[in-house]
Amino acid sequence: MSRESEQGEFAFIDWLRQRTPTANRVRLGPGDDTAVLAWTPGPDCLVTTDMLLEGSCFVLEGGSVQVPGVAPASARRVGRKAMAVNLSDIAAMAGVPLAAVVSVGLPRRQGRVLAEELYLGLREMADRFNTAIVGGDTNSWDGPLVISVTIVGEPGPGGVIRRSGARPGDWLLVTGPLGGSILGKHLDFIPRIREALELAALVPLQAMIDLSDGLAADVGNLCQESCVGAVLWADAIPIHPQVGQLGDGRSPLEHALGDGEDFELVFAVAPEVGQSLLQQQPIAGITLAAIGECLGQPGLWLEQDGERRPLPPLGWVHAFA
Amino acid sequence: MSRESEQGEFAFIDWLRQRTPTANRVRLGPGDDTAVLAWTPGPDCLVTTDMLLEGSCFVLEGGSVQVPGVAPASARRVGRKAMAVNLSDIAAMAGVPLAAVVSVGLPRRQGRVLAEELYLGLREMADRFNTAIVGGDTNSWDGPLVISVTIVGEPGPGGVIRRSGARPGDWLLVTGPLGGSILGKHLDFIPRIREALELAALVPLQAMIDLSDGLAADVGNLCQESCVGAVLWADAIPIHPQVGQLGDGRSPLEHALGDGEDFELVFAVAPEVGQSLLQQQPIAGITLAAIGECLGQPGLWLEQDGERRPLPPLGWVHAFA
Repeated sequence: MSRESEQGEFAFIDWLRQRTPTANRVRLGPGDDTAVLAWTPGPDCLVTTDMLLEGSCFVLEGGSVQVPGVAPASARRVGRKAMAVNLSDIAAMAGVPLAAVVSVGLPRRQGRVLAEELYLGLREMADRFNTAIVGGDTNSWDGPLVISVTIVGEPGPGGVIRRSGARPGDWLLVTGPLGGSILGKHLDFIPRIREALELAALVPLQAMIDLSDGLAADVGNLCQESCVGAVLWADAIPIHPQVGQLGDGRSPLEHALGDGEDFELVFAVAPEVGQSLLQQQPIAGITLAAIGECLGQPGLWLEQDGERRPLPPLGWVHAFA
Repeated sequence: MSRESEQGEFAFIDWLRQRTPTANRVRLGPGDDTAVLAWTPGPDCLVTTDMLLEGSCFVLEGGSVQVPGVAPASARRVGRKAMAVNLSDIAAMAGVPLAAVVSVGLPRRQGRVLAEELYLGLREMADRFNTAIVGGDTNSWDGPLVISVTIVGEPGPGGVIRRSGARPGDWLLVTGPLGGSILGKHLDFIPRIREALELAALVPLQAMIDLSDGLAADVGNLCQESCVGAVLWADAIPIHPQVGQLGDGRSPLEHALGDGEDFELVFAVAPEVGQSLLQQQPIAGITLAAIGECLGQPGLWLEQDGERRPLPPLGWVHAFA
């Protein structure tokens, strides 16, 4: 997708939301990382879906669509990614995934072997998080490969963490280094399910989102949902070492702000909570970084060398759009 | 899809099931109309997904894929169908739909208008059955239109009706006339949600399936899941009047046995229950027909003019494969 169509998507989602009626059983409908359904008398049910399209979200080894400069991935890696991007949405709610359904459109000439390899990749990732694949729909067609995964889950012990709870003064923290995911992380990342649950058990999380469209775009979305603004501290944003390999003339910071598909989590906490998390670094395997602060006025800013300048929330650059 | 790939799909599903581990929270995994999740301490949660692919499940007005002899459908009708086929799976469990998520891959050049028309069609059908559209994933790409819908629901008052409960001697009943759906019904059918709930409230349903692949194929599947065989009574099978317009040299009965996408329900009941349903016709708007009987030995038979001959369970002929 181009930036233009990305904007088009947001505009379309706004359009959808205006047309979405309230419903007794729906606690949270379109516009967050997952939907939340009241599940009387049991706990709430989380539902999320994501579709991956060949040539747009991945390039398939032996597939019919090649994209210059993008390394093709095996069907197994594509399957892993298709499951992982959905798990990442559950992580962004600090939720516990329970079950997935998968629908696929398979290029006719590849068929069965492709389907099996995809499934093995899907299962590999699902098994890692005790997520059962409970159904699906398998089709063949003359088009490229398409996979849609839906996951249902339930809230973790800390309850559902939305995008909309950040308050002015809250700090924004991130779970890992950003940028350059096109070189491999967009396929091989591990969704932050465990980290989100540990965090939610430790401290009150005000708001959370997973980074799929890029830091600036996704923080912009969290802020908009929370009716706050934010300033990001340029020097504090952790940058993934692989960014250095891109050599495309854009700075590492630009990549960290703009690249999509990092699938780290950004969350808002009270400043004293943020300070404590930074000092204690209580989550094994990751280093939390404080990258900014929420403001009382709308707008997104970047603070660098003592100056604040506006940061357009359109940081999203698809891996290979 | 061709018959060959349809067989391939069943083989693939078998392969999947062999590899699907048991899981505490999964009461029913791949292989039925929907999955059933234990939702402690609340009621069970039904989840089902279906994907529609341009040129394979529909021809789109103004789309890039044309199929000789198949009338193109508006995006709104395609949206209606995408929701309806999923609702039909919930109906087949005698379930109550609650919420849906929708992921789409939109041909880049059509974009927003197409997305809106699809959504209006999806909503039209979802609203009819109080099903909230609670989320989704909207993408643009260079391929044809693809839509995947997932619905979550809960069991109706009669509990979950599976495919696997039919017993030798049970009668098989169908909710409406069959065949020729390519002429329009495959787009415009109304899923049998209401009828299934009324039936389940009235009588014990032993097993049920919705007719998507064709009568012979779907009855074959129900029988296999139930470890029974069946004989279908040729003269008792209700045939849709539109079959007469097809003029392709195949008999009306062949169409009724083999055409896909009727989206009527076939269900198994005790003979005395079947007799009572036939006499009383208690479901407003439809005429129930008894079309056959379950047998103690595996195998599918067609009884016509006093003779029984084997009926291959490969009746499925896609609308325009």
